[in-house]
Amino acid sequence: MTSGKPLRVAIQGERGAFSHQAAIGALGPEIEVLPRATFDELFDSVVDGLAERALVPIENSLHGSIHENYDRLKNRPLHIVGETQLRIRQCLIGRPGSSLGMIRRVASHPVALAQCRRFFAERPQVEAVSAYDTAGAVQDLMKGGLATQAAIASRLAAELYGGVVLLEGIEDDAENYTRFLLLAREAVKSEEPASKTSIVFVLDNRPGALYQALGVFAARKVDLCKLESRPLRGHPWEYSFYLDVLGDPCATAGEAIEELGRSCRELRILGSYPEGLSRNGV
Amino acid sequence: MTSGKPLRVAIQGERGAFSHQAAIGALGPEIEVLPRATFDELFDSVVDGLAERALVPIENSLHGSIHENYDRLKNRPLHIVGETQLRIRQCLIGRPGSSLGMIRRVASHPVALAQCRRFFAERPQVEAVSAYDTAGAVQDLMKGGLATQAAIASRLAAELYGGVVLLEGIEDDAENYTRFLLLAREAVKSEEPASKTSIVFVLDNRPGALYQALGVFAARKVDLCKLESRPLRGHPWEYSFYLDVLGDPCATAGEAIEELGRSCRELRILGSYPEGLSRNGV
Repeated sequence: MTSGKPLRVAIQGERGAFSHQAAIGALGPEIEVLPRATFDELFDSVVDGLAERALVPIENSLHGSIHENYDRLKNRPLHIVGETQLRIRQCLIGRPGSSLGMIRRVASHPVALAQCRRFFAERPQVEAVSAYDTAGAVQDLMKGGLATQAAIASRLAAELYGGVVLLEGIEDDAENYTRFLLLAREAVKSEEPASKTSIVFVLDNRPGALYQALGVFAARKVDLCKLESRPLRGHPWEYSFYLDVLGDPCATAGEAIEELGRSCRELRILGSYPEGLSRNGV
Repeated sequence: MTSGKPLRVAIQGERGAFSHQAAIGALGPEIEVLPRATFDELFDSVVDGLAERALVPIENSLHGSIHENYDRLKNRPLHIVGETQLRIRQCLIGRPGSSLGMIRRVASHPVALAQCRRFFAERPQVEAVSAYDTAGAVQDLMKGGLATQAAIASRLAAELYGGVVLLEGIEDDAENYTRFLLLAREAVKSEEPASKTSIVFVLDNRPGALYQALGVFAARKVDLCKLESRPLRGHPWEYSFYLDVLGDPCATAGEAIEELGRSCRELRILGSYPEGLSRNGV
């Protein structure tokens, strides 16, 4: 940042959510985080200029794509200016002075609880309690209003709300990563060169159309890393395709996208950005 | 049916759910319907032999694929023996003797409520109330226990529970179809010839792999109608692909699938069946 004002970054969820942790990882600790209750509010905060960036979860390595966020990408005039990934490490968080043996009821979001089945299976005396948010469960725990002795959330949530990490990494599957996209109102030139371009396109509804579309990349040895399809409203069993294209958007990868654009019904570039974890687009 | 016993068909949801309507449309009114609360129970009812068939919603033309049911298809030893589609026509259902002007509170499943935004926007005096199931909301309405005067559900739900259809087709978007798969424990030869084959495969993680996979079909002019990807557990950012292949599985389409099977890491045929609405597999 060149100016003194911190970058305002909207996230979905409470402070201490995994999105908050990912935002700090990608953009540094000096950002101003704007918690939003829903994904629609998250996108709108950048459209409306309340935040300079939104960090949007788009895919989890266990649960798959967050498809509704692909739809929101298509329906809003925003640009992808970066991406980051976060390993999801679930922590058992108690109140200060508590210990593992005291815990009988543990609150968290149902998805987090479902990721920690082994923890509960090994402790039949411990009950799982659903909450609306992982970090929110830690906040409620600290207020003491609930009849629970612990919550499952990120280490950051423990730090922010004054909880104690009783166990770390209690998720069943260590290969649990969430990929996030960083969105802005305008395309932003990052310090690192862009190496990935996300596009959305609609093909003519004829045999072999997708094969031919992928062929413009194969012919140039341009690598693709994610293909997603979503229904086309008003056209049952027809689809929009979302594709992540690797390579320099000003060289071969960009040429391939241009060629695809000439042969399909519609194509929009959602953004070009450096692949992977980065501090770009700030 | 050759025997006198009705075919037992499991559905997710209550009697009168859209799945029930689709089951009657595909298999006729003489089936025995087994309502199941969850998708896991739906699949397990056929695995365990409690039902001869399960009718599984796999895709909606507005909301997209029901991705978790793709995962369940992969993880269970079942066969797709047919498919059917149903136009979702939402009905406003009241108690006998009620009229449209009396309605102030309307209960339904949140997805059904979201599909009828125009109905509520045009009637600011009418409140939408969330319920766990469309047909269940009609059942509750008839019991009179709730402070609602109407429910949104299928016409079948009105008929089964003695409700009155006050308005039909109140969904915002008429192009609202759900596609269902009919599952059985064993592959079943249908009366109509099979014209569609569903497969799931894992490709080697190298550039151009998907393009080459689609090429075995393009080279034979075999048409594809649905491609879906799902995360491969334990391999972040790698995917299983689900593909629906059109054509005779004993001719060119089958040859293409065989060739693909030789070149990829794993491939399973989920089933061959007649495309579209059918009374097959009984």
